[in-house]
Amino acid sequence: MTRAMDAYRSLEKQFARLSALQEAEGLLHWDSSVMMPEGGGVDRGEQLATLAALAHEMITAPHVGDLIEQAAEADLDPWQAANLREMRRTRAHATAVPGDLVEATSRAVSSCEGIWRQARAKSDFAAVRPALEQVVALTRHSARAKAEALGCTVYDALLDQFEPGGSCAAIDPLFADLESFLPPFLDAVLDHQGDVADTPPGPYDQTAQETLGRTIMQAMGFDFRHGRLDVSAHPFCGGTPGDVRITTRYDTGDYSSALMGVIHETGHGLYERGLPSAWRRQPVGLARGMSIHESQSLLMEMQAGRSRDFFSFFGPLVRERFGVNGDDWTDEAQHRRAIQVRRGYIRVNADEVTYPLHVILRYRLERAMVEGTLEVADLPGAWNEGFERLLGIPVPDHCHGVMQDVHWFDGLIGYFPTYTLGAMTAAQLYAAAVLHNPDIPRSLTEGDFAPLLAWLRPNVHEKASSLSTHELLVQATGKPLDAGVFKAHLTRRYLV
Amino acid sequence: MTRAMDAYRSLEKQFARLSALQEAEGLLHWDSSVMMPEGGGVDRGEQLATLAALAHEMITAPHVGDLIEQAAEADLDPWQAANLREMRRTRAHATAVPGDLVEATSRAVSSCEGIWRQARAKSDFAAVRPALEQVVALTRHSARAKAEALGCTVYDALLDQFEPGGSCAAIDPLFADLESFLPPFLDAVLDHQGDVADTPPGPYDQTAQETLGRTIMQAMGFDFRHGRLDVSAHPFCGGTPGDVRITTRYDTGDYSSALMGVIHETGHGLYERGLPSAWRRQPVGLARGMSIHESQSLLMEMQAGRSRDFFSFFGPLVRERFGVNGDDWTDEAQHRRAIQVRRGYIRVNADEVTYPLHVILRYRLERAMVEGTLEVADLPGAWNEGFERLLGIPVPDHCHGVMQDVHWFDGLIGYFPTYTLGAMTAAQLYAAAVLHNPDIPRSLTEGDFAPLLAWLRPNVHEKASSLSTHELLVQATGKPLDAGVFKAHLTRRYLV
Repeated sequence: MTRAMDAYRSLEKQFARLSALQEAEGLLHWDSSVMMPEGGGVDRGEQLATLAALAHEMITAPHVGDLIEQAAEADLDPWQAANLREMRRTRAHATAVPGDLVEATSRAVSSCEGIWRQARAKSDFAAVRPALEQVVALTRHSARAKAEALGCTVYDALLDQFEPGGSCAAIDPLFADLESFLPPFLDAVLDHQGDVADTPPGPYDQTAQETLGRTIMQAMGFDFRHGRLDVSAHPFCGGTPGDVRITTRYDTGDYSSALMGVIHETGHGLYERGLPSAWRRQPVGLARGMSIHESQSLLMEMQAGRSRDFFSFFGPLVRERFGVNGDDWTDEAQHRRAIQVRRGYIRVNADEVTYPLHVILRYRLERAMVEGTLEVADLPGAWNEGFERLLGIPVPDHCHGVMQDVHWFDGLIGYFPTYTLGAMTAAQLYAAAVLHNPDIPRSLTEGDFAPLLAWLRPNVHEKASSLSTHELLVQATGKPLDAGVFKAHLTRRYLV
Repeated sequence: MTRAMDAYRSLEKQFARLSALQEAEGLLHWDSSVMMPEGGGVDRGEQLATLAALAHEMITAPHVGDLIEQAAEADLDPWQAANLREMRRTRAHATAVPGDLVEATSRAVSSCEGIWRQARAKSDFAAVRPALEQVVALTRHSARAKAEALGCTVYDALLDQFEPGGSCAAIDPLFADLESFLPPFLDAVLDHQGDVADTPPGPYDQTAQETLGRTIMQAMGFDFRHGRLDVSAHPFCGGTPGDVRITTRYDTGDYSSALMGVIHETGHGLYERGLPSAWRRQPVGLARGMSIHESQSLLMEMQAGRSRDFFSFFGPLVRERFGVNGDDWTDEAQHRRAIQVRRGYIRVNADEVTYPLHVILRYRLERAMVEGTLEVADLPGAWNEGFERLLGIPVPDHCHGVMQDVHWFDGLIGYFPTYTLGAMTAAQLYAAAVLHNPDIPRSLTEGDFAPLLAWLRPNVHEKASSLSTHELLVQATGKPLDAGVFKAHLTRRYLV
């Protein structure tokens, strides 16, 4: 028994080291997006490749496998047992795919992403097709290897990288529900909503946007002694629990994308910062997965940030910071613009009603590609047909269609569902939080996020990876993921 | 022979990997000084300790030693042979000191530096004395281990970490020369110089200082596609040849410290950027050592940047950027202020005449501490006595004396001599460059650094570590390091 416990302790040390290495990798990625001069890319590429290779060697080392087997005999408490489970899962992913396939995929992805960046501007799918075919072929190869190692289907094996324990079996009924609900609901919302005036054209001073963003971050509980706000082309949240780095981008023609982006990324950041410090750098102490992570950003942005309650706090700040006033600038008018629904081509600009339709399309297509029932050559046709069926408008060109997102061209296949799982989870968690403390909506009218955070900390953040996504949700909300809560939220916000 | 060559090639791969890892470590250090929020220090400490431990394991791995022995039989060209020599030297330093001593030193240094930071403000040497005693004891221990491994004296073993091949035997006559020359020379300079008016108190707009700094960096040949300029408490040059990160700090009461600092750090940066790309990430492709590195910054700052020639370019820019004019602002008046000499307590504020005296004092004291002839308890007394003898003024308190520099409290022992070796080397290289191309001084009057850089590239930068410091200097200037050239420079600038 002592030997088994020693093995477990030794694994904790190994994984702490791995985690510190991956944190360093994360900082290099942050720097690449936020600070690095254009000519630094070659050097950075070598540094990142080296750190990734070292991490891969560390985790696939045979003695780590031996230690995991030995530790299985130890008398572990529930968190330790969950930690060992996560170690096993992490290692299974790493060892399933041989090193040369990892390297070939990394090269193919890097090349394809570069070609896509050029070809997208010209809507030229033919130009990127061979590179994408290679990425898909290699991904199928990895998916088969992982499926065999994990004992699951090929798509579930990819999904498991981003959403541990996720499965098509769980997703399909949820997405089928939304797919039948949303198109007629969208028609009804557009009817009900009537005309919404555009945001007045500004300009909205960038410094004022940033100051306002920081004010809101502070209201949300972001601690600037342990984090930064910067600018990058694509907003993201990086860093570590002790040093959370979020980014946004500013458009002087429309302040709201930067500010709603800040609220979104702060949601991610609060999750990271709230992970249990006792389990820092252990697999069980890391964020649960992408659907929970996205639930934390969407809870802050969509549930709290775009609520009418929050606009009682936000509306006056906007008027004051930008020196605007009048009918276009009442709290009510600002809120109407913030929840405007429209049919559009671009996922990242989509509102919360149409967003799941964008995701469902991508889920069906990428799953078919991985399962081998859809070839890359047929992808644009399948996209255009599916898009028009789901969103009700025809796709004008590939840059507003199949070429809009970097994901597939960057080898990120199996990721898309987590956006909509996250949106549904956010609705369910927010509803549970409000049920627990009915004062939460009123506190948002004063910009006070403390009551909301006080519920999220013990029920989500501090659970880290000790539970499965499913268990976490059941413990926090009393039931499994339920599209009904999300639909009820949409109905209340958009039709009542 | 093939096996030996295979061993050499394998070493090249190992050291490239080590170098990429150390580059990542370097970026984390840069971020700590420039970007990191105060609360990020704990996480960063873990990341840095992990990368350092991985690098140490990589280089001390027994098979690296075997490969070095095998590669010695290979038919190597001169650069490859030099590369192998540097690999052997790097490994000798790493293997000489057992891991637990490295770790104990790292902890002692980190603690001592923290105590020093608090105690310095109160000039309280007693508070930091026990911690410094521990650092010195551990350093003596390491020095003995390294001396045995390298077959040299204890102080030379420490010096070799910063100045490969450096020795007290080479330093002593040079420093003795300066020690007898400088005190009477300083009296003469102060007599000759007369009264110099202080810089008018400003304020000098920080943005204007930064813009002017960037203008000068560009004139010097700094490529912003491959580098950045930022702010940090202590100016430094970090990054990689493809992504050079220099920093400065701004004082709105005096623009000149920021701008001369920018010129200094740009000198370091141009060296890094000019290292031979064919030998990137190989030991032979790295900068030669700290005296050559410091020669590149001091050549740019002291030889070129504070020359009367350069002020024909710089003077008008200062008048234009800050909107100043009149007798205080002629090129001549600005230059007089830039080369003002005065007796002072603080090394980092010292002019080039008094600077070597600060360094000589530190060299004698740290050497005595390492050799065991001076105890930490007696250090303040020895400092005060030596300082007054060399600089001619009594030390008012420890924060203007023995506690002013972080080096010893941070475990940096054996480093100080490189500042003055660098100053002498700078004078000798600049004289050789001008002898080779007499148009260099005139080109500086137009802010054209290209002729100077055209000489430095092949004679210094592109040599990297292929030659010893001594060989490099002999090849570039026709003779070994010679205090006479430095003295002649001082005499010409300050007494003629």
